[in-house]
Amino acid sequence: MTYRSGYGFPAEVIWDRQRMERLFARKWFFAGMRGDVPNKRDYLKFQLFDEEYFLIHGNDGVIRCYVNRCAHQSARLVKGEAGRCAARIVCPNHQWAFDPNSGQVVHASFMPEGFVGSRECDEFGLTEIPLREAGLMLFACLGDAAPENEMDLIVETIAPYMDPFAKAGHGYKQAYHHREILDASWLMAMLNNRECCHCAQNHKRLLSLFDPSSFNGEHTPDYKARLKAAQARWEDKGLAWQEQAFNTSENIRISRYPMGEGFKSQTFDGELASQKLIGPFVDGEADEGTLSFWLNPNAWVHFVSDHIIANWILPLSENKCAFYTSWIVHEDAVEDVDYTAEHMKEVWLVTNAEDVGLCQSMTEGARSRYYKPGPFAPPEQFCTQFADWYMKASL
Amino acid sequence: MTYRSGYGFPAEVIWDRQRMERLFARKWFFAGMRGDVPNKRDYLKFQLFDEEYFLIHGNDGVIRCYVNRCAHQSARLVKGEAGRCAARIVCPNHQWAFDPNSGQVVHASFMPEGFVGSRECDEFGLTEIPLREAGLMLFACLGDAAPENEMDLIVETIAPYMDPFAKAGHGYKQAYHHREILDASWLMAMLNNRECCHCAQNHKRLLSLFDPSSFNGEHTPDYKARLKAAQARWEDKGLAWQEQAFNTSENIRISRYPMGEGFKSQTFDGELASQKLIGPFVDGEADEGTLSFWLNPNAWVHFVSDHIIANWILPLSENKCAFYTSWIVHEDAVEDVDYTAEHMKEVWLVTNAEDVGLCQSMTEGARSRYYKPGPFAPPEQFCTQFADWYMKASL
Amino acid sequence: MTYRSGYGFPAEVIWDRQRMERLFARKWFFAGMRGDVPNKRDYLKFQLFDEEYFLIHGNDGVIRCYVNRCAHQSARLVKGEAGRCAARIVCPNHQWAFDPNSGQVVHASFMPEGFVGSRECDEFGLTEIPLREAGLMLFACLGDAAPENEMDLIVETIAPYMDPFAKAGHGYKQAYHHREILDASWLMAMLNNRECCHCAQNHKRLLSLFDPSSFNGEHTPDYKARLKAAQARWEDKGLAWQEQAFNTSENIRISRYPMGEGFKSQTFDGELASQKLIGPFVDGEADEGTLSFWLNPNAWVHFVSDHIIANWILPLSENKCAFYTSWIVHEDAVEDVDYTAEHMKEVWLVTNAEDVGLCQSMTEGARSRYYKPGPFAPPEQFCTQFADWYMKASL
Repeated sequence: MTYRSGYGFPAEVIWDRQRMERLFARKWFFAGMRGDVPNKRDYLKFQLFDEEYFLIHGNDGVIRCYVNRCAHQSARLVKGEAGRCAARIVCPNHQWAFDPNSGQVVHASFMPEGFVGSRECDEFGLTEIPLREAGLMLFACLGDAAPENEMDLIVETIAPYMDPFAKAGHGYKQAYHHREILDASWLMAMLNNRECCHCAQNHKRLLSLFDPSSFNGEHTPDYKARLKAAQARWEDKGLAWQEQAFNTSENIRISRYPMGEGFKSQTFDGELASQKLIGPFVDGEADEGTLSFWLNPNAWVHFVSDHIIANWILPLSENKCAFYTSWIVHEDAVEDVDYTAEHMKEVWLVTNAEDVGLCQSMTEGARSRYYKPGPFAPPEQFCTQFADWYMKASL
Repeated sequence: MTYRSGYGFPAEVIWDRQRMERLFARKWFFAGMRGDVPNKRDYLKFQLFDEEYFLIHGNDGVIRCYVNRCAHQSARLVKGEAGRCAARIVCPNHQWAFDPNSGQVVHASFMPEGFVGSRECDEFGLTEIPLREAGLMLFACLGDAAPENEMDLIVETIAPYMDPFAKAGHGYKQAYHHREILDASWLMAMLNNRECCHCAQNHKRLLSLFDPSSFNGEHTPDYKARLKAAQARWEDKGLAWQEQAFNTSENIRISRYPMGEGFKSQTFDGELASQKLIGPFVDGEADEGTLSFWLNPNAWVHFVSDHIIANWILPLSENKCAFYTSWIVHEDAVEDVDYTAEHMKEVWLVTNAEDVGLCQSMTEGARSRYYKPGPFAPPEQFCTQFADWYMKASL
Repeated sequence: MTYRSGYGFPAEVIWDRQRMERLFARKWFFAGMRGDVPNKRDYLKFQLFDEEYFLIHGNDGVIRCYVNRCAHQSARLVKGEAGRCAARIVCPNHQWAFDPNSGQVVHASFMPEGFVGSRECDEFGLTEIPLREAGLMLFACLGDAAPENEMDLIVETIAPYMDPFAKAGHGYKQAYHHREILDASWLMAMLNNRECCHCAQNHKRLLSLFDPSSFNGEHTPDYKARLKAAQARWEDKGLAWQEQAFNTSENIRISRYPMGEGFKSQTFDGELASQKLIGPFVDGEADEGTLSFWLNPNAWVHFVSDHIIANWILPLSENKCAFYTSWIVHEDAVEDVDYTAEHMKEVWLVTNAEDVGLCQSMTEGARSRYYKPGPFAPPEQFCTQFADWYMKASL
């Protein structure tokens, strides 16, 4: 099978794990939000292919990404999905200790005096992989030659939209985190994410937050009017709203769009999920809009007036992937006073669970000996964008 | 190891998945009973190797077999083990719809006008595999060149025994269905099925339904007399009873034999499992006999006066297989009035669970590095028949 | 990567299953205690690579090891982890029967007369693998050319320490048995066992039984005095105590060392685990010492005054291993009168569970693409011994 633009991936591409690995060694992938590790020594663990990594917020305020493996006898350094380390990262096996800022060995139990700090010891520090921030978002790359200019363009493209949140003068923190292993190809999961033709039947509750014509097909006159009014409002507030459809950076789509009338947040009841508004929004003046980022190769992130929902997917093999979601709020929001995780997380837990079923189903079907790539419909244009991009970027 | 007739399979044959796949592409395998999908749009899903298929009863009354995969983005079309579709088969992902009679696309959501019905669209219909009926039984074949003359011989061989049931002027329906994935080689499961030397110790409850001498070893004078009387009775009723031991068709053994005195059905208490008798049997006049079919490559089906028990096994890999059992009754039998599933299913649920343990045990032993093929005893003659047949048919 | 003594294994050695299999075909491995199968026809099943074996205590008092597979149709012969057979080993499938002393077929159901005892029949006896006893311990070897002289040296080396237990004139029995499958490399599990640098943080409860300086680092003056007094006491009682550190046999380390003051047994409360003392110890005069054996390739066994704890590990694949522990007591000890399993088993259940987590963690880290062998500290000297020995013995 050869690839044809406008159709799904050839079978041999879907099951080519080396190709997937090449992509993640060449491209910056979404790895979490600064709000996932807001304080010094906070860490967030993640898995990519057979490897475990963790983000850690250094004592110098810089967030870094290390391989989760002690160089002494290979034990895992951090255990839970997320947590806070001691001042040094201490291996639970033999208590070797590492500096979170440099990854260097600062204590090597039972080793002869003089070992720590020696040239040999240098070889046994933590393995670090490149990590960069773009506003509130963190991007990593597995390869040594991570393309810095591509990351520069991501930062630039995102800035006008993100800055009102990133430079608002307050911090952010995780309100809730969910992760799940899917028996699904990461490629199928991304195709599912890149179209909303499946939404009408599969995400009925999510769609209740929006005008039915906002995602697919022709906008209704009513919605056009709402959208125009909203754009004028955003203009007034100095909020960027111009659509970016993988045109400035081929890694990024950005859209700002109104929610249904009276919806102050992405909640099923339309009420605020958190009483502390974030970024440019002033308490009591929530905006009825959502700012969304769809990022190649692996994420979609939604900003509303009171919280941020970050979704990202990382392949574990050609058959499995890990699906991460973080709900991020104002650093001063107090659980059970300003927000409850229960109320906040419902929309995306429900929606993502619906997608998980579809992604697994598509993966099973793609495994069929009768598989052949199917055609994307015009409103599935971003599937075509993703497939074209992947074919080229992973070559 | 080379194969010797009269001994088990060489190890390299047991673990040769390609060989198994060749067989299922060349031979008609048992795929269910008409009673499993009695009404229009009823479907029954099954798995064979890595693939999912489903039987569906068309709006034209014809039962067909399709691959369970939407050609658009590869999602599964039908979800449960069995059920009833809408008038068209609608994919739960993007609502593409297919005609159950032809497999053709009748609706392709969001695709440009003119796509449905176009030449390109024809490529995206359902994949159909050959399916034929023999009386009440359904047989499928994975290969394009399914041997029609072999199927003709199956139909002919079965007809004299089956016709009184198939042409009785009433329909059938599933009373209960059970399926189970076994950590067992399909070949080991078939060898287990083809001999009753394991019955005395492993199927004590099943044997309570029959004369101990009916299956293995010499018939007792008492049993000989019972058998002779039964044959005279069947003769009178016009019921075929002559043994077919893979002689007319090498795929078929047929036997009609008496149950224990007073047994009106295959139930542990000997009472009827359903008050509505089937086929040639008149309510109130149940026959104390069973008509059994053993079918290569994968089934054994028992007919009694009031219900039918169909057992069939399909390989999923060289290590795993799926074991299906359906209990079929008169279409007019009313659950909890004429029958209870609880009472009806007990004999074969118990018996099959006993066999599952043996099949898994034999498979583990066959995986041993010390494995060598063991000898079949004379009453294990149908193991020899199966092995000889498989060696040749899968070559 | 090439191997350097003093560092962990190269990745390609860790994942080389053939190399592991070579080792177990060349070396005698620990397979259980005589006390695990104390009576005639007692069996203990175990798994090694993909194979099941069982120890069986013959009608002649000799313990043998057979492959757990019937030569007729490959079913497993014994089912539970441990148990007692009938006078003959009878296959649950077709009731073929085998002599536990010779492994020969003594009954072949349904086979023609004359088959049992024929030359052909001889081929279908049980497959036996070499098994030898050293005192109370049992050692097996998968290869046909098991090195008898190596086993002779094991017997000789162990004898001075073991004889007071083995020749005490009473028998032993299992009080409790635990087994567990680990998602861990057997090599990582052995390295974990061969050092106590991880103990301080990971085995806090175990260490409460001993002087903190007994295992790592310099002995305190206090401990030195205790040790000296204990050695004098052992000398008086005729108990060997000289350390063997893989010097006489490269397969064996032996150490006798005092427990904490007042500790009569390896229990968290220091009280006797069983009222019936064993071997050289007289009821009422428990010794505050432990005699330990660390055995290459796969075991560590501790003798105290009232019971024996045997731990052993067998690889199932390069990724998985099985961890067995038996608690052995005086044959006359009566459960719930002289001992409770609850009280006896706690120390090693707790300790081993702690190690299981570490072994799995080390295995995950060793699977990393960033893996490289780490250095062993001086008190990890027996890791170096194990690694050096394995590299040579498995070559």
